[in-house]
Amino acid sequence: MNKNKLPKQEENFSDWYNQVIQRAELADYAPVRGCMVVRPYGWAIWENIQSALDKRFKDTGHVNAAFPLLIPMSFFEKEKEHVEGFSPELAVVTIGGGEKLDEPLVIRPTSETIIGHMYAKWIKSYRDLPVLINQWANVVRWEMRTRLFLRTLEFYWQEGHTAHATAEEAEIETRQMLDVYTDFAVNVAAVPVIPGTKSDNEKFAGAVQSYTIEAMMKDTKALQSGTSHNLGQNFAKAFDIQYLDPNNQLQYCWTTSWGLSTRFVGAIIMTHGDDQGLVLPPRLAPVQVVIIPIFRSEDEKESVMNATNEVVKKLSGLRVKIDDRTEMTPGFKFNDWELRGVPLRIEIGPKDVEKNAVMTARRDIPGREGKSSLPIDGLNHQISAILDDIHDNLLAKASKFRDDHTYDPKDYDEFHSLVNSGWVYSYWCGDKACELKIKEETKATLRCIPLDQNIPDGKCIYCGKDAKQKAYFSRAY
Amino acid sequence: MNKNKLPKQEENFSDWYNQVIQRAELADYAPVRGCMVVRPYGWAIWENIQSALDKRFKDTGHVNAAFPLLIPMSFFEKEKEHVEGFSPELAVVTIGGGEKLDEPLVIRPTSETIIGHMYAKWIKSYRDLPVLINQWANVVRWEMRTRLFLRTLEFYWQEGHTAHATAEEAEIETRQMLDVYTDFAVNVAAVPVIPGTKSDNEKFAGAVQSYTIEAMMKDTKALQSGTSHNLGQNFAKAFDIQYLDPNNQLQYCWTTSWGLSTRFVGAIIMTHGDDQGLVLPPRLAPVQVVIIPIFRSEDEKESVMNATNEVVKKLSGLRVKIDDRTEMTPGFKFNDWELRGVPLRIEIGPKDVEKNAVMTARRDIPGREGKSSLPIDGLNHQISAILDDIHDNLLAKASKFRDDHTYDPKDYDEFHSLVNSGWVYSYWCGDKACELKIKEETKATLRCIPLDQNIPDGKCIYCGKDAKQKAYFSRAY
Repeated sequence: MNKNKLPKQEENFSDWYNQVIQRAELADYAPVRGCMVVRPYGWAIWENIQSALDKRFKDTGHVNAAFPLLIPMSFFEKEKEHVEGFSPELAVVTIGGGEKLDEPLVIRPTSETIIGHMYAKWIKSYRDLPVLINQWANVVRWEMRTRLFLRTLEFYWQEGHTAHATAEEAEIETRQMLDVYTDFAVNVAAVPVIPGTKSDNEKFAGAVQSYTIEAMMKDTKALQSGTSHNLGQNFAKAFDIQYLDPNNQLQYCWTTSWGLSTRFVGAIIMTHGDDQGLVLPPRLAPVQVVIIPIFRSEDEKESVMNATNEVVKKLSGLRVKIDDRTEMTPGFKFNDWELRGVPLRIEIGPKDVEKNAVMTARRDIPGREGKSSLPIDGLNHQISAILDDIHDNLLAKASKFRDDHTYDPKDYDEFHSLVNSGWVYSYWCGDKACELKIKEETKATLRCIPLDQNIPDGKCIYCGKDAKQKAYFSRAY
Repeated sequence: MNKNKLPKQEENFSDWYNQVIQRAELADYAPVRGCMVVRPYGWAIWENIQSALDKRFKDTGHVNAAFPLLIPMSFFEKEKEHVEGFSPELAVVTIGGGEKLDEPLVIRPTSETIIGHMYAKWIKSYRDLPVLINQWANVVRWEMRTRLFLRTLEFYWQEGHTAHATAEEAEIETRQMLDVYTDFAVNVAAVPVIPGTKSDNEKFAGAVQSYTIEAMMKDTKALQSGTSHNLGQNFAKAFDIQYLDPNNQLQYCWTTSWGLSTRFVGAIIMTHGDDQGLVLPPRLAPVQVVIIPIFRSEDEKESVMNATNEVVKKLSGLRVKIDDRTEMTPGFKFNDWELRGVPLRIEIGPKDVEKNAVMTARRDIPGREGKSSLPIDGLNHQISAILDDIHDNLLAKASKFRDDHTYDPKDYDEFHSLVNSGWVYSYWCGDKACELKIKEETKATLRCIPLDQNIPDGKCIYCGKDAKQKAYFSRAY
């Protein structure tokens, strides 16, 4: 661990972000510009994200598969908006086995095209529908400005791709997966999110309608944290995904796609982290509880280690680590595990053993206030309850932070100044021209139009014309 | 499902293999030559393989991480044997974001180089050792002759990469992972394997010593099913992976790598399958038990479905599927699930319900002999025991098949004729010249030199000179 102090968030958030990732050994820079190595501690967070999401996908009837990394270049040209959106970002293989290829191959930036091609082959009749497939995969997009986890040339994600018999079913699926992402973000990652629709200007290249969950980071910028797209019949028509209906008539399918990526690890870091380092939500933390035995003599060691082993046994359902490194002081270890964001620390010293108790310290409540002495008897229930409480507290703190930094300006002047320090929630007429002017003048983009608003009509914050809906505007990652 | 009959294994094994994969919906051909789509049923087998292996890796102290897909071309030139072995197979990215790249990037065919580069950065002191990392990843090798699962341009695997302070530790690790693969093959996949060393000629490009597990397919060819490599200090020296020892002296690390891929799905298909289709080992089968309710009237339906639901509840720890499709006859369903290799079928009809029993049919024992009527009471224990028995039976059958087709010829003439119908286990002097002559004259390669032979000295089957060891020779995939 680097001995220099971590930069403070307020002083340089971006520097804080990069340093905390490297010092906590979540990820490192790869030799190729913009690529990342996800180190074991970072990958363990992603594995926990995968497991929480995968369970939800399977519970809603989806199955996993694996589609190829390499896609013929010509596939991208079949859907007009799609090729416009993705062609500037493609990595292209032109040589294979020492020979120039007849047709260049693209490393998938997303898989609608190749999956559409296969669905066209597999789907014959209404009896084959719906097709509900997800894949866990790596994708490559040639981004110019990259940042660990948030935007890297290669990233890891899941991409769901479904095909349905009716427009209605496709819309239900799209919304269902948005709900799955919202549930995951709030109840697993303790990241409060606003679910809503993207504007036409911000939607996925080739979608009829894109839904998003948007989260506020601690520098008050927005992070798009997961998206679900209703693709209508755009890809079905481009790739000929057709089925025979019960009346033996050929019909085009209605398709959807939805994805959440390693970018979400960035959301966790920037939602919960503080000047001491990471603060990991207990349900995703690779180590939920770290135990630090403290002793000075061999006699003390024996009794302390006995108590430690007893505690480990009691916590068998949790992810527990004993830090028994001998070359470091307890103080060094406290700082080290705080940097790594472990939700709960347990200290066991000779005095604790005498009382048949342990000292606990919560990562989310710094200093004495977060410490308690707890009897070893019944510790399993107590620790589980504390971890749940940490989750609730992280969610409440992040929600309060977001609400405290969300503004409803009275006019565009106020909008312009407020949007530098948070989100703005304003009436919008729905006109792309206003959206683009706002972006040009303030650097804030339309993040989402929240669902089910139930609000009276108002006036567009930019043009003053009638508006039926409000939208969130913010600077974003 | 295609209504034409599956080809018989004896008539055309290769055609049987390709058709069973496509009809059982394990995989399909991708639009790019030599690439494969792993369909949900095939991917579910791989997910079960992943989960069995991942548990074993973690139990032996390994952690997962993710290293980048794209590797600078220059990295391959740092280890001489490695570049010779892999350069004919590389897929090369020359264009990114619309621009020609300064240095071409290789899609990883394996990750020793990029991981070596990172280890050199991370490892400073003996305290950082050992480093025990695995990754689950896709890799690309530009193969000319491809076959679904066995050899595809892109395939999926795990690759473990470890770094140690001493040669001895590296050798222990290499052998430990060979043992893990053997245990997995035998006790999870019911695939009997011979663990052994590769000859210098057949070893991994850049390794000091390669270990392998070799399995016999039903056409008597060998399939290399997993490998573990002791890399000595070759990659440590090429990539400068050094550590300070306790005396503050810089030392090179000793490294290993080991991998098992989706090729193993091919091993399962060709070890257990028969003329009716797949036969999946119970511990990896995505569906362990399929239940087929049989009824003719609404009255029958009610009582049969009640019994079915009761049975499902009893089997809650197993992977169970109810086939309640109404548009197909029970006979069609029996064939369909046999093709898909489900280990155990349960039929529930009105007569079974009357007896408070079910009819079971084992996939591994065709016809009446594999059928029993079992009382619903206590069914959970009975079914678990039957699945274990199916595992044991599959392993015994495959072991017997292998032993029946393994020969110990008295001279090279006999060798030459026997090697067309099985494996040959013969004395070998250790000279590469003999090995290459045998390959040239018989198309059989040296598959492995089994560990711990404890045999008297003999004479090389090719040159007649003194030989201390025997080796397996066979035609191979």
